[in-house]
Amino acid sequence: MLGRNSYGKSGIRLVRLDRASADHAVSDLTVAVRLEGDFEAVHVAGDNSGLVATDTMKNTVYARAKDLAGREIEDFALTLTDHFLRENAHVSGAEVSIEERIWSRLGASAFEGSSQERRTSRAVRSRETVVVHSGLKGALILKSARSGFSGFARDRYTTLPETGDRILATSLTAEWTHASPSRSRADAWDAVRRTLLETFAAHDSASVQHTMYAMGEAVLQAHPGITEIRLTMPNRHHLLVDLAPFGLKNENEIFVATEEPYGLIEATVKREPDTKER
Amino acid sequence: MLGRNSYGKSGIRLVRLDRASADHAVSDLTVAVRLEGDFEAVHVAGDNSGLVATDTMKNTVYARAKDLAGREIEDFALTLTDHFLRENAHVSGAEVSIEERIWSRLGASAFEGSSQERRTSRAVRSRETVVVHSGLKGALILKSARSGFSGFARDRYTTLPETGDRILATSLTAEWTHASPSRSRADAWDAVRRTLLETFAAHDSASVQHTMYAMGEAVLQAHPGITEIRLTMPNRHHLLVDLAPFGLKNENEIFVATEEPYGLIEATVKREPDTKER
Amino acid sequence: MLGRNSYGKSGIRLVRLDRASADHAVSDLTVAVRLEGDFEAVHVAGDNSGLVATDTMKNTVYARAKDLAGREIEDFALTLTDHFLRENAHVSGAEVSIEERIWSRLGASAFEGSSQERRTSRAVRSRETVVVHSGLKGALILKSARSGFSGFARDRYTTLPETGDRILATSLTAEWTHASPSRSRADAWDAVRRTLLETFAAHDSASVQHTMYAMGEAVLQAHPGITEIRLTMPNRHHLLVDLAPFGLKNENEIFVATEEPYGLIEATVKREPDTKER
Amino acid sequence: MLGRNSYGKSGIRLVRLDRASADHAVSDLTVAVRLEGDFEAVHVAGDNSGLVATDTMKNTVYARAKDLAGREIEDFALTLTDHFLRENAHVSGAEVSIEERIWSRLGASAFEGSSQERRTSRAVRSRETVVVHSGLKGALILKSARSGFSGFARDRYTTLPETGDRILATSLTAEWTHASPSRSRADAWDAVRRTLLETFAAHDSASVQHTMYAMGEAVLQAHPGITEIRLTMPNRHHLLVDLAPFGLKNENEIFVATEEPYGLIEATVKREPDTKER
Repeated sequence: MLGRNSYGKSGIRLVRLDRASADHAVSDLTVAVRLEGDFEAVHVAGDNSGLVATDTMKNTVYARAKDLAGREIEDFALTLTDHFLRENAHVSGAEVSIEERIWSRLGASAFEGSSQERRTSRAVRSRETVVVHSGLKGALILKSARSGFSGFARDRYTTLPETGDRILATSLTAEWTHASPSRSRADAWDAVRRTLLETFAAHDSASVQHTMYAMGEAVLQAHPGITEIRLTMPNRHHLLVDLAPFGLKNENEIFVATEEPYGLIEATVKREPDTKER
Repeated sequence: MLGRNSYGKSGIRLVRLDRASADHAVSDLTVAVRLEGDFEAVHVAGDNSGLVATDTMKNTVYARAKDLAGREIEDFALTLTDHFLRENAHVSGAEVSIEERIWSRLGASAFEGSSQERRTSRAVRSRETVVVHSGLKGALILKSARSGFSGFARDRYTTLPETGDRILATSLTAEWTHASPSRSRADAWDAVRRTLLETFAAHDSASVQHTMYAMGEAVLQAHPGITEIRLTMPNRHHLLVDLAPFGLKNENEIFVATEEPYGLIEATVKREPDTKER
Repeated sequence: MLGRNSYGKSGIRLVRLDRASADHAVSDLTVAVRLEGDFEAVHVAGDNSGLVATDTMKNTVYARAKDLAGREIEDFALTLTDHFLRENAHVSGAEVSIEERIWSRLGASAFEGSSQERRTSRAVRSRETVVVHSGLKGALILKSARSGFSGFARDRYTTLPETGDRILATSLTAEWTHASPSRSRADAWDAVRRTLLETFAAHDSASVQHTMYAMGEAVLQAHPGITEIRLTMPNRHHLLVDLAPFGLKNENEIFVATEEPYGLIEATVKREPDTKER
Repeated sequence: MLGRNSYGKSGIRLVRLDRASADHAVSDLTVAVRLEGDFEAVHVAGDNSGLVATDTMKNTVYARAKDLAGREIEDFALTLTDHFLRENAHVSGAEVSIEERIWSRLGASAFEGSSQERRTSRAVRSRETVVVHSGLKGALILKSARSGFSGFARDRYTTLPETGDRILATSLTAEWTHASPSRSRADAWDAVRRTLLETFAAHDSASVQHTMYAMGEAVLQAHPGITEIRLTMPNRHHLLVDLAPFGLKNENEIFVATEEPYGLIEATVKREPDTKER
């Protein structure tokens, strides 16, 4: 029998140019649509009636892009999930994920977009509920002080020395959940991002987990409209190079940056249940 | 407060050479370890006691690699999850995922490993339960006949023409669950893979969903030790090139292969509940 | 002043389906076109007359794909270079590079194409001359015996121990040059590839350079229509894991496969000048 | 016989932390070393005497990294090429390429490095000569006005409409050559980069070639110590989406960004020969 199933269109590359003023604005989005619903006949019998084609999803994104003007990606994700549920009786749930490349201004009509960091949004809607998430991914950040790792468990396979001074580097992914989808989100993304980076920079880190939790806690404290935040922080290890064979001393100065293997640390930080009840 | 959290080591690149006979054998694995448990003090207080370092996880994988000899990756995943639970009181759950690159023999001690397809395994263990999955990913497969797509829903944003004859191409990911972790798995992986590819090749496809379901159903029918299978089949669209501007007719012959956007189709196929009760 | 310049279209993704027999055949090509010529006015004055648009290059590849039927990629590359020189007076040189993904047959109309190895061809044509190259790239090959590395120079920065028994792994790129572009190339590619892999497998390797040269030499000896061959063999290092801290002995059995850093070894092997004069 | 050959080590990932002041500084380099010389015996006879191991090259880079303090990557590349020529009699030429990831300051000891743009340097040294290049790669830039493409050649395969208003986007790679290796390079890189981006932003573009040439010309005019500059500008096409089927008009507003195929435009701009003679 058919278990959980979904389908959709990913990698919809949409660039919208806002020429309303002499200073142009660029929205550069990659959109993914995912639908769930009553698609048993599609799978089992090859009966496509009631199936919205993924090509139609793509067309819908481009057609509705007119509505983007002056709005946040969270609103566009909401609009699209609403569209797919209203128009398609077989659909019980819709999820729209958007990744935005950020273009910095070089001039009135020129831009630079080299950063691999993305602003993200995700709207998840059923016939009864709707939840909106915002986030970021691919923010490469590094601490060169206030970071150690010691006091961990040791067994017969442990060789890692303790250290009070190590480089901590990560490619940050974070996704936070809004208490209400209708809440205004203007400026909010920048503010949450700033909280994350400032906490990362200032924290006295005993481990990736320790700093990650502090970052999540700071976001919940500073931004009351956010109910929870999920953080993913792969540990991009920087290993001290052994210079002793060359008669040199490495005073925490020369490192090899490695891609593999990497620690992978994930956690959700959320409000205490009683906080909600107040 | 701290919500769901986990941590581990990913990208552990282990190659084991079996020199027991003149015909060498190569096991080329990428291992990921992920642990859950009582790590609140690590996050909140920066107290690392009881925390097994991800560097220790890596060491453990290499040290235990001696045990790989003549065994399947499912067994190695099981061995490793068992190790981490037994050795670490704070750990309540362990997941070990292994991807194996397949090297084909060129000679007694020479091999070719260009395929991007990977054999996969994943063991998930708590203090009470253990489940073992096998799978494959990155198998690029294509049907040039017996594939159409028609009768789907049409709305004002639908422009896709119906077709009774299209290329269907995908990068197949499949993961199936074994009824028992102790079950012998020798030869089983090859057999399941063959069922998947043969069904894909022979099926009269009304949609990706239709063929995907048929593939899952065939696996459950042919392999009684498997309880369910999850399939992911991105639709690598091959679009007919319009040759009319050049005075030529494209008789389903010349296509442009596209990377973006792509359909993304996923489903689980499982046994009927009553099947289990019989 | 304007120095050397060229322009073209890369990443032209062309799939041609041959339905002439019940057993279909798939040609899956990525084509790049590059032109040189008298384009000073384009650069300096913004005068585009005489400039063939890269979009037109793409159209040309698709329109001429009809001619692919039953022919090798070398012929298609030749046809295309001929086209661009004949049709465009401003063009003095044309280079067409083709990479072919190889699809293996699963059935009459089903195929598997997971290998990252590519067959390649490159035609380089001026108003006076034309040269045709064939090649391969991305062939991942590994030797687990008959490979050592010793006797190399040692200075104050050398720490690498000598070894008579190491894994030698590489992602092979090779490109060979045909004495005549009109020479029939059917079966030739398979034969050259076989010579390369068999020599790699059988060679008693003192270094990557040593084996690479033997491979090139074997190709020139076995294939008289080839005038030279260029080989690129990055050294995908497999490092012995130190198991001593765990009380274990690593008898050339457990390795960590690394991506970075990697040795990069390149050489051309060609016929002695007097060979050509005979 | 052996033709042109070289070997070296690529992907040497070096991070140097400068803790001299409370405000730390990070140098994040990826270094590649390539040597040429008299290595015929290595290839033909498997005689490694005189061969500097690529592992030794890597060690040398780390050991000499101490010398990086307060110096530009151009100087480090020069130092390394000098080292390899002086220490190895068999070596006739050395090339050292360095790519630097740029970390922006978040605090005294915290940094953000998400940009995929890299600062580059390359020193090429023989026993008689030495040339130093500087450059950048991966700078993603976009013009939303002052860019057209018209008046190009039309043949039977041309379908591209002319336009006076298109998005021009590229991932800029540039490499410029210094008249003298000893010339001070402090601040120079920032200044050249600024010239490139400002010219890109302000230029009235008739084609990629036209803007590329203007960028190169501007660099040579503003920076007398540079003798030539090589520019590579892939054309990241942004195609207008046809909204007519949905009853909408696309007023140069909604685009699909494509990865493949892409135009690839390259040119060198250099000083007039008589300029040098003055």
